[in-house]
Amino acid sequence: MNIQGKHYRTIWLHPENEQVVQIIDQRLLPHRFVIVDLKTLEDFETAIRDMYVRGAPLIGSAAAYGMYMAALQFSASQPVALPNFKEKMQEAAARLKATRPTAVNLAYAVDRILSEMVVRENIAEQTQIALQTAHDITEESVNHCHAIGQHGLKLLEDIYQKKLQQSSQSAVRNHQSSIINILTHCNAGWLACIDHGTATAPIYAAHDAGIPIHVWVDETRPRNQGASLTAFELAEHGVPHTVIADNTGGHLMQHGMVDLVIVGTDRTTHMGDVANKIGTYLKALAAVDNGVPFYVGVPSSSIDWSLRNGMTEIPIEERDAGEVHYISGLDENGEVRGVRLTPAASPAANFAFDVTPARLVTGLITERGVCSASEDGLLSLFVEQKTFDY
Amino acid sequence: MNIQGKHYRTIWLHPENEQVVQIIDQRLLPHRFVIVDLKTLEDFETAIRDMYVRGAPLIGSAAAYGMYMAALQFSASQPVALPNFKEKMQEAAARLKATRPTAVNLAYAVDRILSEMVVRENIAEQTQIALQTAHDITEESVNHCHAIGQHGLKLLEDIYQKKLQQSSQSAVRNHQSSIINILTHCNAGWLACIDHGTATAPIYAAHDAGIPIHVWVDETRPRNQGASLTAFELAEHGVPHTVIADNTGGHLMQHGMVDLVIVGTDRTTHMGDVANKIGTYLKALAAVDNGVPFYVGVPSSSIDWSLRNGMTEIPIEERDAGEVHYISGLDENGEVRGVRLTPAASPAANFAFDVTPARLVTGLITERGVCSASEDGLLSLFVEQKTFDY
Repeated sequence: MNIQGKHYRTIWLHPENEQVVQIIDQRLLPHRFVIVDLKTLEDFETAIRDMYVRGAPLIGSAAAYGMYMAALQFSASQPVALPNFKEKMQEAAARLKATRPTAVNLAYAVDRILSEMVVRENIAEQTQIALQTAHDITEESVNHCHAIGQHGLKLLEDIYQKKLQQSSQSAVRNHQSSIINILTHCNAGWLACIDHGTATAPIYAAHDAGIPIHVWVDETRPRNQGASLTAFELAEHGVPHTVIADNTGGHLMQHGMVDLVIVGTDRTTHMGDVANKIGTYLKALAAVDNGVPFYVGVPSSSIDWSLRNGMTEIPIEERDAGEVHYISGLDENGEVRGVRLTPAASPAANFAFDVTPARLVTGLITERGVCSASEDGLLSLFVEQKTFDY
Repeated sequence: MNIQGKHYRTIWLHPENEQVVQIIDQRLLPHRFVIVDLKTLEDFETAIRDMYVRGAPLIGSAAAYGMYMAALQFSASQPVALPNFKEKMQEAAARLKATRPTAVNLAYAVDRILSEMVVRENIAEQTQIALQTAHDITEESVNHCHAIGQHGLKLLEDIYQKKLQQSSQSAVRNHQSSIINILTHCNAGWLACIDHGTATAPIYAAHDAGIPIHVWVDETRPRNQGASLTAFELAEHGVPHTVIADNTGGHLMQHGMVDLVIVGTDRTTHMGDVANKIGTYLKALAAVDNGVPFYVGVPSSSIDWSLRNGMTEIPIEERDAGEVHYISGLDENGEVRGVRLTPAASPAANFAFDVTPARLVTGLITERGVCSASEDGLLSLFVEQKTFDY
């Protein structure tokens, strides 16, 4: 998608140097737009753990390029024997997987690279296939997000037609009453992916198709990915939106001000339980209580076919309490500055994700179409998973 | 309650000058402790509107002293006839009521002062009764909060006994497992009242009685009354607590980490619908979904006997969007400083309250005891209201 009218992805190989990967440092958005070079495995670990890059699909792609960078690093540093190289790559895989525990895309990408490497005969070929697979994972992610956008667009077209009908039947007919109000939580936008986004893909597709959209953007404390990233990318693309405190969505739904909720996911189980940014579950409860459809944009790379019960089986990352104590923003001199919010004597806790049980989810929007949040629903689209042993 | 070991209330008449009212400027907590003198009606309007003081019971008391100050001001500024004085007091009442629309305590206090003044014969007596009534409203609020604490203490004692029994039956017996985990939203603490608090009164009573309590403190965006005020007052009183993002409560309840929720209210209807800080409704939904009791501390001054349906009848204040865009905290030099969180191009909305339907509320803790959130429940405690014409 565009920033200041120029098209960007969130991660790319340096155009003139195949030994450098470039990313947007998302910690500084929306206040600063800074591109960072990643050159070592350590750079990738830091970028993922400290959230220069974040969002399940982007984490997957970053981890894939991290594996390529590790391969380059290990093969270049000294003459190395293949068994030793393989051992080092296993270590690199473990280190990358340890950076963020909840998103399944990370483990998926790392394991896929390893399985491609293991069948190649020498270090050069293994390094080459690591790069190729990282590219493949990245392109697939873009294609999946685009397809999610197209499937979601149909949902939004239906809602729009219904709103137009209602509007034409009502005495007061105006443009305002046919606008589709969508609430989203966190950033499952193109900045969380490579391009298009998951939750935002239908939004961009509908906006580009001329359907009037307005997005309620949950701020998404403690890291404010909504206020910082979703608001930024919607503004850059010209999609009307309003930032709200995370506390607000229930009130809006009670008063008919939300037509549907669309969120992303870091890991969705075989049965349709959805792990996503902390607070998603609260919005799903409010959606059900007010008859508002609650959809999840789910690329298949975020489905964990090995898990059934999201509540008990998905690991929930606990991050540093400092993310609750401190927040950063732009001060009156235009500097990005952190301030402390809490009393010095008060501890804080920082659970990064929660699990929305499948029973609260209206549907999953995957790259293959929309299905119910259930084993039957998912298997109807991903028939090849019926052979999976569970 | 205490600050740095010294007992304070949130509002008091200057000990040496009856023409000055003093308050704690709550906008600067927890970082600065500043006492402000209020000397004019305008001072009170600013203090209430701009939230130097906030919380339904404290707003009521402040508005009452504001009426006294207006009376002083009008009578002192020039020789004035009684009809003209009455007209000016009506204007003062309207101006104070306009500062914050949601809390019913404000209108209650102002109207009570007016009704006491109207039966006095001259300006001096009217001014004196305004002061006396402000004192009365304030003392009643303290007594009501204390009584809410005693009734809530019984609830907490029951929960503690059950937890002790469960703990003694389990193989692993430890202190940790008998701690009562209470979640609260916003600040319905002593800082929202005159002393004790509404939601916090049972917490302080139980803590002082030796029952082990731990409080999950919702940060409460956008104004962070939880992180700033509730955390501060719990820390000053030595009650164990942890600050969490507003998004977190659902996850905690899903995992058995909350034994009960207690919140305050700005206005509760005759039928038990509870208006409180935005986001309260989301916590109530999660409480019901997880079988966690959800209680509301309700002094009778916060009950609006004239309203039935909270969703349609309680006015919800919309505050300045700047409260979402900007936040202030302590910078690295120890200065309180505001920073901007959102992109310059992004609008924000700021609904200050929501309504939790009575069906989601386990019980109301009033100064006369605990009742169900229903017409029958409330009338069982406030029988005199049966004569009210509705």
